[in-house]
Amino acid sequence: MSSKTVSLATYLFIRLRQLGVGAMQKGVPGGFFLLALDQMKSTGLRWVGNCNELNAGYAADGYARIKGISALFTQYGVGELSALNAVAGSYAEFSPVVHMVGCPSRKTYQTEGIVQHSLGDGNLRVHAGIWKNYTVAQAALIEPRTATDLVDKTLQTCVQESRPVYLEIPSDMITLQVQKDSLANLLRVFPPANDPKREDQVIDTILNQMYASKQPYILVDGLAAPDQIIDEINEFSRVTGFPTMSYTFGGGIVDGSLLNYHGVYAGKFGKLDFTSYTDTADLALLFSPFLTNVNTQGYTSIPPKDITICFHRKAIEIGDKESHFLHVKSFLRKLLQKIDISRLPNPAKASSIPKIRDVQKSLPPPDLSAPIDQDTFYLRLSSYFRPKDVIVCANATPLPGGRDFVLPPKTTLINSPIWLSIGHMLPAAQGISLAQRELKTGGRTILLEGDGSFQVSAQELSTIIKHKLDVCIFLINNDGYTYERMIHGAEEDYNDIARWNYLLAPEMMGAPRKGEGDYKVETYDVGTWGDLMPVLESASFGDGKGLKIVNVRMDRMDMASRFKPALKAQGDLLRAIPVE
Amino acid sequence: MSSKTVSLATYLFIRLRQLGVGAMQKGVPGGFFLLALDQMKSTGLRWVGNCNELNAGYAADGYARIKGISALFTQYGVGELSALNAVAGSYAEFSPVVHMVGCPSRKTYQTEGIVQHSLGDGNLRVHAGIWKNYTVAQAALIEPRTATDLVDKTLQTCVQESRPVYLEIPSDMITLQVQKDSLANLLRVFPPANDPKREDQVIDTILNQMYASKQPYILVDGLAAPDQIIDEINEFSRVTGFPTMSYTFGGGIVDGSLLNYHGVYAGKFGKLDFTSYTDTADLALLFSPFLTNVNTQGYTSIPPKDITICFHRKAIEIGDKESHFLHVKSFLRKLLQKIDISRLPNPAKASSIPKIRDVQKSLPPPDLSAPIDQDTFYLRLSSYFRPKDVIVCANATPLPGGRDFVLPPKTTLINSPIWLSIGHMLPAAQGISLAQRELKTGGRTILLEGDGSFQVSAQELSTIIKHKLDVCIFLINNDGYTYERMIHGAEEDYNDIARWNYLLAPEMMGAPRKGEGDYKVETYDVGTWGDLMPVLESASFGDGKGLKIVNVRMDRMDMASRFKPALKAQGDLLRAIPVE
Repeated sequence: MSSKTVSLATYLFIRLRQLGVGAMQKGVPGGFFLLALDQMKSTGLRWVGNCNELNAGYAADGYARIKGISALFTQYGVGELSALNAVAGSYAEFSPVVHMVGCPSRKTYQTEGIVQHSLGDGNLRVHAGIWKNYTVAQAALIEPRTATDLVDKTLQTCVQESRPVYLEIPSDMITLQVQKDSLANLLRVFPPANDPKREDQVIDTILNQMYASKQPYILVDGLAAPDQIIDEINEFSRVTGFPTMSYTFGGGIVDGSLLNYHGVYAGKFGKLDFTSYTDTADLALLFSPFLTNVNTQGYTSIPPKDITICFHRKAIEIGDKESHFLHVKSFLRKLLQKIDISRLPNPAKASSIPKIRDVQKSLPPPDLSAPIDQDTFYLRLSSYFRPKDVIVCANATPLPGGRDFVLPPKTTLINSPIWLSIGHMLPAAQGISLAQRELKTGGRTILLEGDGSFQVSAQELSTIIKHKLDVCIFLINNDGYTYERMIHGAEEDYNDIARWNYLLAPEMMGAPRKGEGDYKVETYDVGTWGDLMPVLESASFGDGKGLKIVNVRMDRMDMASRFKPALKAQGDLLRAIPVE
Repeated sequence: MSSKTVSLATYLFIRLRQLGVGAMQKGVPGGFFLLALDQMKSTGLRWVGNCNELNAGYAADGYARIKGISALFTQYGVGELSALNAVAGSYAEFSPVVHMVGCPSRKTYQTEGIVQHSLGDGNLRVHAGIWKNYTVAQAALIEPRTATDLVDKTLQTCVQESRPVYLEIPSDMITLQVQKDSLANLLRVFPPANDPKREDQVIDTILNQMYASKQPYILVDGLAAPDQIIDEINEFSRVTGFPTMSYTFGGGIVDGSLLNYHGVYAGKFGKLDFTSYTDTADLALLFSPFLTNVNTQGYTSIPPKDITICFHRKAIEIGDKESHFLHVKSFLRKLLQKIDISRLPNPAKASSIPKIRDVQKSLPPPDLSAPIDQDTFYLRLSSYFRPKDVIVCANATPLPGGRDFVLPPKTTLINSPIWLSIGHMLPAAQGISLAQRELKTGGRTILLEGDGSFQVSAQELSTIIKHKLDVCIFLINNDGYTYERMIHGAEEDYNDIARWNYLLAPEMMGAPRKGEGDYKVETYDVGTWGDLMPVLESASFGDGKGLKIVNVRMDRMDMASRFKPALKAQGDLLRAIPVE
């Protein structure tokens, strides 16, 4: 050891800190990497200590969606495979997670040992082999001379591509001393600049199409967050004044108070029908799309390619013929500078398109004795949201329900456009809350969870409590898998779940009782509007401090009514007589 | 549909029933296979409905260890990847699980749809691709004419190899009609017969070595269970009278009341030291070994190859030169018939080897005011066991602790020799209890769980309660990851866990309160021998009915004392200065 060297683990942890990582998600401290944990503290990294690795992976996913990077450390074999579903979801949905795995020593690899967490055949690289499918870069830190370089390149790829990477760290490499001089230079993680001439040409083409259009609209999707163009999109919408809608995944990208923002576009299955405008439009400006079957209602709500200008992370597509490899962020900034407002169309028909904000405003006060219904719950909840809140929708009835939200500026909406793994969002909320605390945003973390989802990853509530995180959970308790009931088997017992006493969970998982300790835990049981409204209006509930759980009892067959036909159609497709 | 056809799902389920599967482990009923669930009932399969897929996989693993086959159904992508860690463990440890995955329709594959649970790139075979590493056979049921044949071959392989297999079932194949005539013939799952001449030659060689030996011993390991030679090994031990020991994994194979059974062999780290005999032995008869670093104390307790006759599932190895491909079960039966007892040695030195039964007998009654200690806990617990009990040791202090058990005949000990995934055993106990109920064994399912382990997969308690299963849990509550503390970081917070109120868990997860309902739930909190002994002696506790949880508070640094040095050595190895 010399003043010019640090251990490889320290090198890695300092790099993570430089990129903004404040905490490491992890389940059980595995024997292969215990030594690395000693070195975390000196670099200022916090150890989360999740109850299991799948939850740790989900939490890392949530954290990365807020901070643009996160760290997950698991044990060889058992730990890494447990986390796979979560990391695969991060890969599919562009959440940049650095997944580090504590592996057997290099000697064990060389001697093909029959060691714990291996398959017993001496082939110790099997687990590593599968990660090439689920991460955008992989590195085995087995060679001291190249290890720091590999660390740098892998982390750069993680941030630049906004997708997970995988690092194998043999136990004997953790404390190995490496040169630390390169740490003085921060990693460059900006996209390369575009060729200005090319950029100008494409901008001209786009502007001319915008100026020439008579019925244009803007359609925004959720990859705008990893593409880091949320501000640019909002400015583009504000400057042009074009009617603006979002896909479900992009529901939180555009400031809901913008006058030309209409709401979530879900074809004939959305609360609002925009098709009178979109079906006859002559220009669709499509930002950061993720055109999955779920996000586009079975590909039915995708604008025709010939009228579409599409802004991807690394490419701009114009109509069905032109495609240009250009990085979107700097491109958009330049485009914004060049817009001549006086030449933009002002389509008369735009005023006739409905707005979700108007629906919210026109809602009569609830009948306090009536049960809480999915059709108005999300609209009414909207007035409870505040700027900088992060609202997380679980993969169940809250996912379509959240389309009705009217969001204040600077709020973030988290939902899943393709991976849709039940149980994802409670642990994700843990990671999100931790990220918000580190960033001191002052915003709250508000989770809309399902009862079936909660049972999948319930122990993550313990991690929330252990770290005294601030999370508000609305548990939509509809007595089973309502989403699946709508597709098939409404009354079948395979769609039932055990009836838990959810509000006992904090006490069971070690939360302080009321009045004990400095961590506030509040639980509420509500079934009618009369139960719920006073809770939403109470100052203590609204302060965003500590853990709040509201058990929202709803009917087992209740669901956003415009969404029901979509699920019925899915069921009909399943039940159709199969063809050979 | 005709009387000559059934749906493909029904065909598959009937085949599973014929092989002895009574229940299907599964987390969430995924959209891609909801229709299959309708067809389960008519075939008599029970739907378990676990809280998540990792737990379902562990439960399937436990069930398969008792019944010789089990069934796991998961949803494409999210479900199957969540179960991967469990199925990989079943693969490593020879537990035969049939893993069926409900996939998108064939049309979706052909059109490369951007569907839920895929990675969004249109390549829908990525998930299936990884299973070739973790299952012994894989089949995609996409071709109606070959589907039943593929089902048959895959299930046969599962049982014959006693390892997991993987079946992809597109959603539109589930109800497709297939010919049912082959169902009239049961699948052949017996190993092929050995060549009698070859068999006789090898038996002669072995018998001659046995007759000529002066200091022989028998060493038994846990693959005897999947190899299905438990009865043969016990008879071999009884007939020869040779001193018999087990590896930790094989700790439950040999009847603990056999006079020549000595206990678990763990080199210098076991409670008993057999090396005065084994080090000078001239013949080791080694049955169904799984010589992992954990099971053999870092490969230190393996007999020298030149004095060893080794009985593998499909091969007999004699010394370091001869290896014969012979199936072990029929071979052993023939060997047993041919032994001439009068020619066997009767080593005088055998009487000097200690026996775990003697240690148990000589134990003084506990000091009732003293805390419960790991060093005598497992020995004292032994008198509580009864024939046909299945005792399950979690991957924590109970794993080495369980070496001290003195087991009655016909008991089964379940522990992990290589995969060692924390959280495995609570769900496994669920599957084991279900299997015992179906088999009407009358035996109890007794789980020795760790507190850290419990938190990993706690929700599986809910499944136990939902199905009113009979499970007795001793929760070894030592306030964190004691196993890891022993290796490194005894006082570090990364080895701490949240302090749960474990005994509140049944009520939280919907168990009936005392006196309500027909399912008995008993909880106990014990810290001293005076607390524990009356519980063990009470008739209600011993009846094996319902759910019993004993919170056994132990010191956070307590552990089987002979095992501590092994973990310290592991830590020393970790802490050694690394070499470039």
